[in-house]
Amino acid sequence: MLRLLHFPLGPFSRKVRILLREKELEASLEAVEPWRQREEVAALNPAAEVPVLLDRDRVVVDSGVICEYLEETRPELRLLGVDPAQRAEVRRLVAWFDLKFLREVTDLIWREKVLKFVTDRATPNSAAVRIGVANLHAHLAYIGFLFEQRNWLAGDHISLADITAGAHLSVLDYLGDVPWEAHPGAKLWYARLKSRPSLRPLLADRLACLKPAAHYDDLDF
Amino acid sequence: MLRLLHFPLGPFSRKVRILLREKELEASLEAVEPWRQREEVAALNPAAEVPVLLDRDRVVVDSGVICEYLEETRPELRLLGVDPAQRAEVRRLVAWFDLKFLREVTDLIWREKVLKFVTDRATPNSAAVRIGVANLHAHLAYIGFLFEQRNWLAGDHISLADITAGAHLSVLDYLGDVPWEAHPGAKLWYARLKSRPSLRPLLADRLACLKPAAHYDDLDF
Repeated sequence: MLRLLHFPLGPFSRKVRILLREKELEASLEAVEPWRQREEVAALNPAAEVPVLLDRDRVVVDSGVICEYLEETRPELRLLGVDPAQRAEVRRLVAWFDLKFLREVTDLIWREKVLKFVTDRATPNSAAVRIGVANLHAHLAYIGFLFEQRNWLAGDHISLADITAGAHLSVLDYLGDVPWEAHPGAKLWYARLKSRPSLRPLLADRLACLKPAAHYDDLDF
Repeated sequence: MLRLLHFPLGPFSRKVRILLREKELEASLEAVEPWRQREEVAALNPAAEVPVLLDRDRVVVDSGVICEYLEETRPELRLLGVDPAQRAEVRRLVAWFDLKFLREVTDLIWREKVLKFVTDRATPNSAAVRIGVANLHAHLAYIGFLFEQRNWLAGDHISLADITAGAHLSVLDYLGDVPWEAHPGAKLWYARLKSRPSLRPLLADRLACLKPAAHYDDLDF
């Protein structure tokens, strides 16, 4: 049996939750707040971060590591591609969103609006948020560009690339910060992703202190 | 034949260079300055970053993706571990240095001193550098802690974990910013790593405009 410690509104936790569902793996989910439960989380992960996966008595940490681990140990439904070239393309896009998008967008919007709020009840730096939203346009255009040529971001099939992009965008969408109307291609791709059963549990997430945007759980937004 | 486009003083480029040598793979290296050769690099990598690996006509980008790709296509000498549990531990430490150490140390020292200098001839923000050096102590202590219990950072054998940590530390060491004397365990581990032939080419790297610290290429520092 798998257990996942996660933060519901965290992009890295969401990536693993979606992957688990896409791979049709049962897992018991435990929502945690790492900044309040620091010792409990640090006992499992020296980096004191979630997601943390427990596979019986084996502890696997870091969202990227967890995804590779699940792909290796539960290869029935593959989400990283079936040969080295495909895997390189899927992983390239995973790195795009987990590193580049993180720096240019997620850190400037999500970190300011969600993380600063839940950890310190601090107000966001509005200049940072503005830059994050401005940067977001180039990424949505890139999603649109890929989606014009492909069925899904990395090729014919849904992959960890779509899941990773969707995980980051879903938390920004919760905040109402995604300018979908200016990017019809990206919007079409996201509508397709959002309609999958693997996304449904995320659309029900609510942070008591932070309400989602009106269209957040609307599949025909 | 493999070709690698790399930035000699970049931690991510160095990671791949060391891995290539440890796996005893021949590759022709081409030093580039992505900020000056933007179009050339962007034609291969939409993220406009190095390292970029060319495996005949296949282009592989992002240092993490390149390492996984080389491990899959050239598995003779394994550096990511031989089973899912080992790989999870190696990848956990790779993520530790490429994400956590990057944010807490490399971004504050290397980005300030090297990247700002080579791209804009700008002077470093000394407050940021001070915080980076302060943060570095905890990471050196963690290396020392691991090295007390293990032969190498992730276990009995040298792995991508050592290579990644060494790649980041080697650029900081070039700058003379690593407080080795306060961390004898980490220093022992680094001396062991530095004495390997795979590190030697890096110790000969010089940036014309930025001289290395006196002990940089000294194996008995």
